Amino acid sequence: MDPDAVAKAFVEHYYRTFDSSRAALGGLYQDASMLTFEGDKIQGAAAIVAKLSSLPFQQCAHAIATVDCQPSGPSGGMLVFVSGSLQLGGEQHPLKFSQMFHLMPMPQGSFYVLNDIFRLNYA
Amino acid sequence: MDPDAVAKAFVEHYYRTFDSSRAALGGLYQDASMLTFEGDKIQGAAAIVAKLSSLPFQQCAHAIATVDCQPSGPSGGMLVFVSGSLQLGGEQHPLKFSQMFHLMPMPQGSFYVLNDIFRLNYA
Repeated sequence: MDPDAVAKAFVEHYYRTFDSSRAALGGLYQDASMLTFEGDKIQGAAAIVAKLSSLPFQQCAHAIATVDCQPSGPSGGMLVFVSGSLQLGGEQHPLKFSQMFHLMPMPQGSFYVLNDIFRLNYA
Repeated sequence: MDPDAVAKAFVEHYYRTFDSSRAALGGLYQDASMLTFEGDKIQGAAAIVAKLSSLPFQQCAHAIATVDCQPSGPSGGMLVFVSGSLQLGGEQHPLKFSQMFHLMPMPQGSFYVLNDIFRLNYA
């Protein structure tokens, strides 16, 4: 499968899951996974889900603007760079964000997130 | 050395070099290096320098807003995520950007850029 298509499918799945049931994102991370969310560093699937579930909003909708991807070296990983906007429930204006994922292959052909860095784009 | 300090030092060196003598950036890339610049994919140090040197502005000044970093797996690499702004010569307003680097270690203790993805943050 074309890497760009894999990256796009992953990103669409990720944000659809985020927007509908954040706790289910745990299946995309492992114990070695790291999230840096607005400068906060969190490690491990359980802690990452706890962090994402504790964000101070209930309803949100991500819209993807761009998805760039590159192979990340000999390990078969893939780097995915996303820009988009995030509409929070009850807020008038969406927030722009940038996020990168380092995806690592799993034996059954899917990927897990080893690295995840998220930043809002302040205007 | 603290990884965050290494990442910050790399980023400061990278943009200082970009803003003063773009051609000298070639020393930071290798043949396997990839750049995705606003969706354009370029591979190899020479082609990357040619791309960066051909951008339609002569003078520019990068200002760094945030630098996040994470180790990228067993290879000793490092992922660096930057947000900042770019002031072009003759333009009134700076452009916001986000950029990620995947740095790989070299035998002598420094790093080269294996992956580089750049996007302007459109308002």
